[in-house]
Amino acid sequence: MSTHFKTIALIARQNRPELTETLETLTTYLQSENYDLLVETHTAKLIPHLKLKTVAYEELGKDTDLIIVIGGDGSLLYAAKSALKYNTPIIGVNRGTLGFLTDINPEEAIEKIGEILAGKYQEERRLVLEAVIHDGHGKIVSQALALNDVVLLPSKDSARMIQFDVKINKEFVCSQRSDGLIVATPTGSTAYALSGGGPILSPEIDAITLVPMFPHTLTMRPIVVSANSKVKITISNNLETKPRVSCDGETPLVIPADGHIHINKSQYTLRLLHPQDYDYYHTLRTKLHWGTALC
Amino acid sequence: MSTHFKTIALIARQNRPELTETLETLTTYLQSENYDLLVETHTAKLIPHLKLKTVAYEELGKDTDLIIVIGGDGSLLYAAKSALKYNTPIIGVNRGTLGFLTDINPEEAIEKIGEILAGKYQEERRLVLEAVIHDGHGKIVSQALALNDVVLLPSKDSARMIQFDVKINKEFVCSQRSDGLIVATPTGSTAYALSGGGPILSPEIDAITLVPMFPHTLTMRPIVVSANSKVKITISNNLETKPRVSCDGETPLVIPADGHIHINKSQYTLRLLHPQDYDYYHTLRTKLHWGTALC
Amino acid sequence: MSTHFKTIALIARQNRPELTETLETLTTYLQSENYDLLVETHTAKLIPHLKLKTVAYEELGKDTDLIIVIGGDGSLLYAAKSALKYNTPIIGVNRGTLGFLTDINPEEAIEKIGEILAGKYQEERRLVLEAVIHDGHGKIVSQALALNDVVLLPSKDSARMIQFDVKINKEFVCSQRSDGLIVATPTGSTAYALSGGGPILSPEIDAITLVPMFPHTLTMRPIVVSANSKVKITISNNLETKPRVSCDGETPLVIPADGHIHINKSQYTLRLLHPQDYDYYHTLRTKLHWGTALC
Amino acid sequence: MSTHFKTIALIARQNRPELTETLETLTTYLQSENYDLLVETHTAKLIPHLKLKTVAYEELGKDTDLIIVIGGDGSLLYAAKSALKYNTPIIGVNRGTLGFLTDINPEEAIEKIGEILAGKYQEERRLVLEAVIHDGHGKIVSQALALNDVVLLPSKDSARMIQFDVKINKEFVCSQRSDGLIVATPTGSTAYALSGGGPILSPEIDAITLVPMFPHTLTMRPIVVSANSKVKITISNNLETKPRVSCDGETPLVIPADGHIHINKSQYTLRLLHPQDYDYYHTLRTKLHWGTALC
Repeated sequence: MSTHFKTIALIARQNRPELTETLETLTTYLQSENYDLLVETHTAKLIPHLKLKTVAYEELGKDTDLIIVIGGDGSLLYAAKSALKYNTPIIGVNRGTLGFLTDINPEEAIEKIGEILAGKYQEERRLVLEAVIHDGHGKIVSQALALNDVVLLPSKDSARMIQFDVKINKEFVCSQRSDGLIVATPTGSTAYALSGGGPILSPEIDAITLVPMFPHTLTMRPIVVSANSKVKITISNNLETKPRVSCDGETPLVIPADGHIHINKSQYTLRLLHPQDYDYYHTLRTKLHWGTALC
Repeated sequence: MSTHFKTIALIARQNRPELTETLETLTTYLQSENYDLLVETHTAKLIPHLKLKTVAYEELGKDTDLIIVIGGDGSLLYAAKSALKYNTPIIGVNRGTLGFLTDINPEEAIEKIGEILAGKYQEERRLVLEAVIHDGHGKIVSQALALNDVVLLPSKDSARMIQFDVKINKEFVCSQRSDGLIVATPTGSTAYALSGGGPILSPEIDAITLVPMFPHTLTMRPIVVSANSKVKITISNNLETKPRVSCDGETPLVIPADGHIHINKSQYTLRLLHPQDYDYYHTLRTKLHWGTALC
Repeated sequence: MSTHFKTIALIARQNRPELTETLETLTTYLQSENYDLLVETHTAKLIPHLKLKTVAYEELGKDTDLIIVIGGDGSLLYAAKSALKYNTPIIGVNRGTLGFLTDINPEEAIEKIGEILAGKYQEERRLVLEAVIHDGHGKIVSQALALNDVVLLPSKDSARMIQFDVKINKEFVCSQRSDGLIVATPTGSTAYALSGGGPILSPEIDAITLVPMFPHTLTMRPIVVSANSKVKITISNNLETKPRVSCDGETPLVIPADGHIHINKSQYTLRLLHPQDYDYYHTLRTKLHWGTALC
Repeated sequence: MSTHFKTIALIARQNRPELTETLETLTTYLQSENYDLLVETHTAKLIPHLKLKTVAYEELGKDTDLIIVIGGDGSLLYAAKSALKYNTPIIGVNRGTLGFLTDINPEEAIEKIGEILAGKYQEERRLVLEAVIHDGHGKIVSQALALNDVVLLPSKDSARMIQFDVKINKEFVCSQRSDGLIVATPTGSTAYALSGGGPILSPEIDAITLVPMFPHTLTMRPIVVSANSKVKITISNNLETKPRVSCDGETPLVIPADGHIHINKSQYTLRLLHPQDYDYYHTLRTKLHWGTALC
């Protein structure tokens, strides 16, 4: 058993045979190695024949030295949200196509996780955003964390198109008429923001990108600013729309009439562990098929 | 006279009447205020009727407290190259359309420069890149500084298209077949790189962007990496081309067969002075016409 | 009075002083010239002090030789929808910023409309699309015409992202995961599709463009196909979403589970009249600010 | 032997073992089937042990019923240029990665070519452009045909950036400062123009696209116009540059000072034969990897 990690939590979000197989393999391995293993409550139901200590999703990172996620990037983001406040590191075993975040292949899961548990790993801290929604009186009505992106969206009933002002550190940046705005972390820069024409931000830079969505002004381009920027978005109320804000693609939060949103760097960071041979650009090349040219 | 600035150098690169007028106004003002004024040798010929102490372009920043440029962004870059090694601050009086760097309007030149000389200004440091070209034996054959961008271009005799490898901090990033690559500073991100689809980098971030030019692989996208990155570009010699490297649009340097280029942050920085009411986003909005929507 | 046009209908959609002024000027002019003038019912309420014959919106083009719209491109599209089935030509007097379709400036309205009524004009026919929504049994549930674009949108309750198949003339084109798809006419190519990265289609070409919205596959690009293409979009029902279709930004129509959409060229065309000096590229240059370069 | 095709020409441009193998297989097959086989002079040297009738490249299509190309799209374009004036149809057997034009796989070459020779094929006509360069006196100095694209390029000695005016059918379209302009056929829309952000033009539309290269005006976008457009590009001579024009990536032709270029549809068309199961969108999906999504 490792001296680095004693208590380990396991979570798998989806019920698919190949995923359950990896889950079972890892459970057996970690138990045989005498780790104190906690399996997330819903995950435990996927392997009912094994004797397991369970842990609720909300406490996944509490008193835990490491969280192992089996699944895709979406599952890792889901688990990570619970782990942030406990500052617990997380690793992902990929099931499906290669993920940007879940970088351990299932066939080498035992080997790679064994190495990590033995202290042979790279640790990376990814920045996290916080979106705080205020009403017209400045009162906070809701807030959420985002590992990938905070996305401003039109009202669900209205047609596309919102009008809003963006300020950074109290300086006016622009008024914009568009379908919305993506504010993405380096982690999120290879997700939704990339589909929208945003740049790839290498994870080591302390910056975020603002990517306008279908802007009516053709010269609006993606901007990269310091991650310490205080971004404030104010909705122009004359359009009588109630736009929404979605963090990491989750159920959108409604912005009240005359309301505004603050987007800042969170006090939390995501602690990602990688195998020692992890290489960010290798993942990029593989995921973006950089080997295949037009001619 | 200011206690901040005693010796001031003046430079104007182009011979246009409205420019000469501003040059004369500023010369008279600075002489009347008893500053120790040095006028760049070629600039002095534009106002031959005035009695002037001159200074060679190469020594523009030597023993000088401030350089004032009259012209466009191109003239400021030209003057700045001389000033970098002396660490002399620089300001620009714009003549023509509003520049990104030359932010003082000629009609308020006396007033704004008066304020700056009285110590009321914002100082900004912009990062500078250094391109070093090696031959196949690793010997340095040429090098240059870039305030905007280092651009890899095809051979002047060949058709478009070069093939090269990019490494960052010795990690392999990608092999690319394209018309070239733009490596731009935040300052250069609103110049050539923007035409090529690159993101706008706010000047406060310590990052550079790599923008592929007409890549054969459609998933090649602009990347933003730390300004401390050691970028190495190796030309695939099987194409028998001799690509070139141009810094800030200057006459390209030829890369020898089997050669490679290193692009790093320079030890120098550009010291830009701005009036106290300078606002980066105001300049962006004005230059990029962010007020004018499609409908 | 013209021998070309005897009965003329007038419509203005918005209640703004400068618009009402133009409306009144044109009404007085056309009455004094003895045209048989019909004013749309709601429009007539803007000038209650004038004695007017009115016509319902639905019959705007019926037994009418010409429709004159005062307003922006949105108002012209609105009026045109009523006129299509009657094949009545339409002209627009612009009120606001220059429109792509409403190309007569109000200050020269009398002069230009006088010339058009005297037979001095250019006539242009713009193609119209028809979107027909079918349920899972192939039954038509709704249909609509589009002068600009047919836009496939996500369900109003779901997060972004739809999955669908596109066929053209029964040939499979692609499966797509994206935020939606814009199918635009040449007229619509300078509207929403342009914000989404689509090409500008010159009005004389008999073609439409399919512009993917935030596609998950980075190599999905805008495609231009014959306007005679029979486009069929089938929603992948495993996502349990009910996407919607919006024509020209109007209230979206819901696509039933297992439903599909056919998009074809309509039997109707939009008959646009222009002054004799009309120049499509002049409008493009003005609207897209082609005169203003970065540097 | 087919009654459709009696005399068949064979050409392969590159000397690679797998290519020579296919060449030998096809030669033997066609000889055994008693076709009148002509092998292009240089191609014949690749299989010196076979007894062959040869034909010069320039007469490849003369008195020939069909040209078979073994190689990539570049080889097919090369052969096609010779065939255009003789109106001889052409087919391509692909050697390397799948081509857009060379759509027969070598392992099924005998079978597919057998079917085509038996009259089972699809014939497609692709439009061809003609670039004519005039000097300042209007005299023609050079001209060339283009199956893919006519590309306006900077002078080989100058820095990037040219300034020019574009007219279509004598109407002024725009003044442009950029790195150049791509004028592409539907065939060329999936080649260089696609790297430059141009749209994909389905081969059946009678249109061409103008794609600006790194335009200084950010609102310059790709335009699609009728293939019957008479495009005229005039170089602004105040820049003292001698830009160049390259057709299909061939050695550029120099444009004299004060010169201009006319680009029109050629009187020739490219006659492409495809197997009966040829499917344009299948090729697009395969070449552009439309199956592989970000996540």
